[in-house]
Amino acid sequence: MELPCRAKTSLPVQLKNGSGEKSVNVLYIYAHPEPRSFNGALKDVAMVTLAARGHTVKASNLYAIRFKAVLDPQDFRMRQDPDHFDPALEQIYGVRTGSLAPDIQEEIEKIAWADLIIFQFPVWWSSIPAILKGWIDRVFVQGLVVDIARGKVYAEGLLKGKKAMFVATTGSSREMYSEDGVHGDLHRYLSPLTHGVFTLCGMTVLPSFIVYGASGMTREEGAVQLDLYRNVLEGL
Amino acid sequence: MELPCRAKTSLPVQLKNGSGEKSVNVLYIYAHPEPRSFNGALKDVAMVTLAARGHTVKASNLYAIRFKAVLDPQDFRMRQDPDHFDPALEQIYGVRTGSLAPDIQEEIEKIAWADLIIFQFPVWWSSIPAILKGWIDRVFVQGLVVDIARGKVYAEGLLKGKKAMFVATTGSSREMYSEDGVHGDLHRYLSPLTHGVFTLCGMTVLPSFIVYGASGMTREEGAVQLDLYRNVLEGL
Repeated sequence: MELPCRAKTSLPVQLKNGSGEKSVNVLYIYAHPEPRSFNGALKDVAMVTLAARGHTVKASNLYAIRFKAVLDPQDFRMRQDPDHFDPALEQIYGVRTGSLAPDIQEEIEKIAWADLIIFQFPVWWSSIPAILKGWIDRVFVQGLVVDIARGKVYAEGLLKGKKAMFVATTGSSREMYSEDGVHGDLHRYLSPLTHGVFTLCGMTVLPSFIVYGASGMTREEGAVQLDLYRNVLEGL
Repeated sequence: MELPCRAKTSLPVQLKNGSGEKSVNVLYIYAHPEPRSFNGALKDVAMVTLAARGHTVKASNLYAIRFKAVLDPQDFRMRQDPDHFDPALEQIYGVRTGSLAPDIQEEIEKIAWADLIIFQFPVWWSSIPAILKGWIDRVFVQGLVVDIARGKVYAEGLLKGKKAMFVATTGSSREMYSEDGVHGDLHRYLSPLTHGVFTLCGMTVLPSFIVYGASGMTREEGAVQLDLYRNVLEGL
């Protein structure tokens, strides 16, 4: 991915881990307000496991950094049209002139660096929390992740070669979120993002890791899920 | 819907409009940052048309009021558990004790008053803008719109009897958002909200009004869409 008018973040040396597998650069986007939650435990497992496997991790803990969730005119230090705010137009102009807000630029440089982006969140209203939607709205900038005018979408999306993965917890049970359950398949709910964002940008979508009924789990059930997650991460 | 520990908003007199049809209370949730956009024109058409039909309208212009998008501990003036933030738990406690933040309480009172809630927004990344997701995360409070522990969901959802409707614009064309198009059916993308939020809360979902390819429309094409929207509103 080309970064606009700024030096690229230098890539760290690619280390091999003990198994001789290639280490990857992992960007971990985390969106839960309570560090001592089960989500917090999942994140901690990820940080330890990924490092132990020789991967390099950069994290954006959206609640901790009080990430600005709302795409608005403040995101643009210069404007193509100061009188009429068209977000897509200004994003393309912001990329071209290197004038996106610093917090957006910072996340963009992490994306450019990353091989894999993991998004971890609690499912709220069958979707991602607003702070995470805001990260996508503001950071997945038109002209940088896709270039619609030049047909740079899907197989030609500008994030081609990168991978994306969802890690999520739900309040509802696995049965409720099954195809025949009252809600229906959770993956269908997440497809606006897995297909409509990641695939559209050319990313390869890895299977989501979902912990159903997280709020009702016993400590032992939670430990089982943490182990399962550790196994998934070790298999990356 | 029961309001917690506060006087209910008094209901205005139900007026009949010229055709003898019952007027309805419409809550209009609007999420676009530019008043002079096509979205702004759609909203203006709605305000005029609904009033002309004798309906009563309350609007929440989320960008204009700088609506706080992120559900966090600041949403709760009292806490059931000050040491561990569990959003669902605190929402239920906030309803019981009447201690939700004033901006949430204000929106809740509008919901209680409304017969129909119209949500108008530009489709960003195949979904709603973060500020609108934040309105749902913060205002659709557990214990007030659903009561999962008592099975008050879907047909028994606590917003039973109310209606919901999406009004949205897209950048992509109708063809791209058709079932065989590159994106697939837009309604599938919106179903996490139409089914996973509104139907779950017991609301009746009206057909969405979608303006496809809005950013590429001529003035004349825009005028046609505004007329179509006016017709839809007149048929409510």
